[in-house]
Amino acid sequence: MDVEKFFDQVLTVRLTPDRKALDIIDQTLLPGEVKRISLSTREEIWEAIKKLRVRGAPAIGVSAAYGVAVVMARSTAQTYKDFYEEFLDLKKYYASSRPTAVNLFWALEIMDRTIVDHQTEPICDIKKFLYLQADAIQADDIQISRNIGEIGFSLLKDLKKEGKEIGILTHCNAGTLATAKYGTATAPMYIALEHGWKGSDMHVYCDETRPLLQGARLTSFELSSAGITTTVQCDNMASLLMKSGKIDIIFVGCDRVANNGDAANKIGTSGVAILARHYGIPFYVCAPSSTIDRNTPTGAEIPIEMRDPDEVTEMWYRSRMAPEGVDVFNPAFDVTDHSLITGMITEKGLLKEPYDQAFKEAHI
Amino acid sequence: MDVEKFFDQVLTVRLTPDRKALDIIDQTLLPGEVKRISLSTREEIWEAIKKLRVRGAPAIGVSAAYGVAVVMARSTAQTYKDFYEEFLDLKKYYASSRPTAVNLFWALEIMDRTIVDHQTEPICDIKKFLYLQADAIQADDIQISRNIGEIGFSLLKDLKKEGKEIGILTHCNAGTLATAKYGTATAPMYIALEHGWKGSDMHVYCDETRPLLQGARLTSFELSSAGITTTVQCDNMASLLMKSGKIDIIFVGCDRVANNGDAANKIGTSGVAILARHYGIPFYVCAPSSTIDRNTPTGAEIPIEMRDPDEVTEMWYRSRMAPEGVDVFNPAFDVTDHSLITGMITEKGLLKEPYDQAFKEAHI
Repeated sequence: MDVEKFFDQVLTVRLTPDRKALDIIDQTLLPGEVKRISLSTREEIWEAIKKLRVRGAPAIGVSAAYGVAVVMARSTAQTYKDFYEEFLDLKKYYASSRPTAVNLFWALEIMDRTIVDHQTEPICDIKKFLYLQADAIQADDIQISRNIGEIGFSLLKDLKKEGKEIGILTHCNAGTLATAKYGTATAPMYIALEHGWKGSDMHVYCDETRPLLQGARLTSFELSSAGITTTVQCDNMASLLMKSGKIDIIFVGCDRVANNGDAANKIGTSGVAILARHYGIPFYVCAPSSTIDRNTPTGAEIPIEMRDPDEVTEMWYRSRMAPEGVDVFNPAFDVTDHSLITGMITEKGLLKEPYDQAFKEAHI
Repeated sequence: MDVEKFFDQVLTVRLTPDRKALDIIDQTLLPGEVKRISLSTREEIWEAIKKLRVRGAPAIGVSAAYGVAVVMARSTAQTYKDFYEEFLDLKKYYASSRPTAVNLFWALEIMDRTIVDHQTEPICDIKKFLYLQADAIQADDIQISRNIGEIGFSLLKDLKKEGKEIGILTHCNAGTLATAKYGTATAPMYIALEHGWKGSDMHVYCDETRPLLQGARLTSFELSSAGITTTVQCDNMASLLMKSGKIDIIFVGCDRVANNGDAANKIGTSGVAILARHYGIPFYVCAPSSTIDRNTPTGAEIPIEMRDPDEVTEMWYRSRMAPEGVDVFNPAFDVTDHSLITGMITEKGLLKEPYDQAFKEAHI
């Protein structure tokens, strides 16, 4: 499939052509059904974030920003005071949809500041500035992913051999479905398509990523929809894949990077990195600079969220898959030691050890 | 729970007290329901093997042997010729239940030889020899597991510190449910209970073992039923478990060991071994000498069975968890390089590198 046609069908969130509603792909129906839905009321937008119809930190931020612009555009407030109070009520309401989503609050704060900064101007102009700000949040995210993708693509080009597909392993979903367009770990592959590579030039192996199966449900869906050769495997099959020579390079996303380069990402990522080191395969973390937290010295200071045991034993299944009452270990993330990371791909360049110095030199 | 009471409830296969039927735990109902069923007809026994009500190579062998003894005891044949023909028909029938189960054929061959060896004796005596032979197959399997368990228990004793539980990781099910009594990878823990250890002296972390979830469904069931502290985790969580210091030792089973010590076992085992090496945790393969194939020089010569994609994408789920038509990598086994194995626990002793020499010296 043409890559632009792919994005037209799969883009996580955008405005409708009349710019009066959000147009999202309903991720709760994937991979069984590909359906785009329109969200115009505050309740529809709140519900879509709450129910994970739209998910992924950057995508939630973009949705909240457009969600403010679209709803506030219909405001009938005649005074700045009424308009701002109406916004504050909306902000509080949206913030209640996913109370742990940092990007949600970040985007709502930016929209708040946009209103306050323009308080002396006519309300109809403030409404336009809200749209412009949401557009900017979206454009920034796309530009960050594009930069990461270009750097990753240059690594793919270095691996390219005539007539041979490049084997790429990824874990979880750091894809277009989590961001405004290219994803982070998937950006190198989409940028490769934009540069004229064929889907068959690459073969992406997607860890299914237990327990929530984002790799099987989302990553394999988006990559195969884009025409890229795609395989799904259980997480524990990565060792055999690497041993059999099928994997040339690994790209993963990240949730938070400490100042020494230790990277927290979806549970299982550290295991992939250890296997990669054992088999001598380069392992890259795709990290927008916004995920790099220079105030956290090392990964040891990153708290690991423990999640509901039912995600492991029951959630997707027709019947329970472990004895009633058995203890379950279900961490959401793990930390990959910086020494296992071949390089960190940020929008400001490909960074290498020592990471604290690299971050400083890149003005992160 | 008292360990003998545990085995009384959970033992995979035994005869009923009148020795006229097999008494098995129906593993297709686990872990939701613990139900023992009686099998007396050839059709019931065939169906139980076919439908995996009884599974695990040694357990299938014992079931087939007792299945011959029980059914042939009811033979009304008056001549050796009629009796042997009746047996050959039964042998062919049983062999059709799981055509790839090597232990099934092995046990049926032993029963065949038992009849032939005693062909000059009265039929009522041959019937008794069949029971004795089946008892011997069961007793041998128990003795092998017990020896492995004693060696593993001595390793646990070396790790024991006052007031601290020993953290043990295992993968898949090489447990009582696969054998006549103690299992292989679980034998050290059961033997520890027989030596008076409390269930809380150990904490066994069971990899759920995708895609067939034998760890979640079977291993965690049997260990927790025996009163051992048990936790289930997704396979990709093993790295974080090891990093956090919760794992002191790892025991896994095996399907086939090459002459150089390379060990084929359930998919994912090689990844566990690589993580263990990275974190400096001892990794032991529990291997009855019958699994050691000295005619296979290295693991590279062990073929890896590729299984049905549906096991990964659909089997247990309420709805399909990957896009229709996406390629799936679903190997049943992988091979752990001998260099990653701390020691191989056989019924003939704890063997160490170089394995070819150790096998030779142990007369394997």
